[in-house]
Amino acid sequence: MSTTKYFAPSVEYAAKILIYLSRYKSKQSTLTEISKNLDINKSACLRVLKTLEANNFVYYNSETKKYSLGTYISVLGKRVGENLDYLRIINQFLEEVCELTGLTAALVQRVSFDRVMFISQYQTQIQPRLSISVGNRFPLTEVSYGKWILANVSEEERNYHLREGLKKVTSYTRTNLQKYIDELSEIKRSNILVSRQEYTNNVTAISSALYDWKGQILGMIALVGVSSLIDEAEEQRLCTVLKEVTNRCNEHLIQLKIEAYEFPYESKITQ
Amino acid sequence: MSTTKYFAPSVEYAAKILIYLSRYKSKQSTLTEISKNLDINKSACLRVLKTLEANNFVYYNSETKKYSLGTYISVLGKRVGENLDYLRIINQFLEEVCELTGLTAALVQRVSFDRVMFISQYQTQIQPRLSISVGNRFPLTEVSYGKWILANVSEEERNYHLREGLKKVTSYTRTNLQKYIDELSEIKRSNILVSRQEYTNNVTAISSALYDWKGQILGMIALVGVSSLIDEAEEQRLCTVLKEVTNRCNEHLIQLKIEAYEFPYESKITQ
Repeated sequence: MSTTKYFAPSVEYAAKILIYLSRYKSKQSTLTEISKNLDINKSACLRVLKTLEANNFVYYNSETKKYSLGTYISVLGKRVGENLDYLRIINQFLEEVCELTGLTAALVQRVSFDRVMFISQYQTQIQPRLSISVGNRFPLTEVSYGKWILANVSEEERNYHLREGLKKVTSYTRTNLQKYIDELSEIKRSNILVSRQEYTNNVTAISSALYDWKGQILGMIALVGVSSLIDEAEEQRLCTVLKEVTNRCNEHLIQLKIEAYEFPYESKITQ
Repeated sequence: MSTTKYFAPSVEYAAKILIYLSRYKSKQSTLTEISKNLDINKSACLRVLKTLEANNFVYYNSETKKYSLGTYISVLGKRVGENLDYLRIINQFLEEVCELTGLTAALVQRVSFDRVMFISQYQTQIQPRLSISVGNRFPLTEVSYGKWILANVSEEERNYHLREGLKKVTSYTRTNLQKYIDELSEIKRSNILVSRQEYTNNVTAISSALYDWKGQILGMIALVGVSSLIDEAEEQRLCTVLKEVTNRCNEHLIQLKIEAYEFPYESKITQ
């Protein structure tokens, strides 16, 4: 990013600080902690924090000397779902696929060069249901959804992400690189991915990709359920339903000429 | 703000842009519209927007050339309620007072020198229920909740806000300045305010103030209902319940040593 002329360093700091304060472990942090952990010069960090505070984007308690996310962020958050056409549309399809399958449905998006995140979810009342932590971020190679990103980037970038090989996350994680790369071609062709306990024990995640009108990947719709409750026939049904719903969702997104943000390879790896 | 040394201009622009994109009328805006309406130099505005876009804080559609709020803001918003202790606590009291009264309960906070905003709300299933638009902002003198702010600022600042007199918003709005000022003393003493159709036809708003441990006003809990359904006895009951719940909420906030943000008078009026 720092190589582009369209860049405001203190806005980048502001974004990083807000993201930092959104994490559970650092939800209440001092200036020193924030500036140290985000590697931001202390006086620049203070200027950014004070400006965010004056806009209710962060809350400061002078007794504890700690900053937290501020109330205005909560209000902005409520407005995204109303104002961002494509999120509103995807959320409708999440709701539909959740009702059709009885599983928790989620939207997963790439949020940085090497991470995907749960953006929103729908749950049924059917028990046992799995719940997803909206806002949780995962490295591309440590969650099944990351495969969709790697299936859609250049070979050069894919190799960069895979440069340290594959980590064994559960006893079911397959760490053979060539088989992983073969799977990327396969899922791109069929637009469906079933991941049984590969990254979380007892959890099956079935996902399908959303594309913008230029063919860029916009995100993934995921269904998550308890593996032992999903037999082969049910898995087949879930795949069919998810593919059909994702197809219709993609048609909507293309009509709206939605465009995905691309994470530039050249700039990000130098960070 | 620009007079203080703890200030990052481009972060202030970023905040203003996000707030601007959160409004219904300007939820999808071009660079030209944003830069013109917020009076930000176009190239500075573009740098801020591009940095926000790279963090998924705004979404850009190159086909329509329009910016909207981005998906990451939605995620941050969900985290505020979990991470900000005082909002979580107030929301619990909103839920309680909503259940006890059968009316919609809301948290109202001052969000800028001259505006208050609905921050969150709870609704019962009882019909007819009034719904509040979280994120809607009102000038201090055009909504009953603004009285709480004016009751708690210096006489100098109060006179500044009242310098153009009082606007007649409904046929019930009282515009006599001296009576208005007398009411400010009265509500501060009793910590309850009943406003019958004074700012919205057929709507009664009953509110009570939340204070931090230093005695600064932190916000207001408001109950809103249909005026014709609230007779004198019911109004009395609602006041008693709201005062009791607000008292307990204030005790919690004081124990937590919550601190309100003060909107500096000297800096804001020169904006």
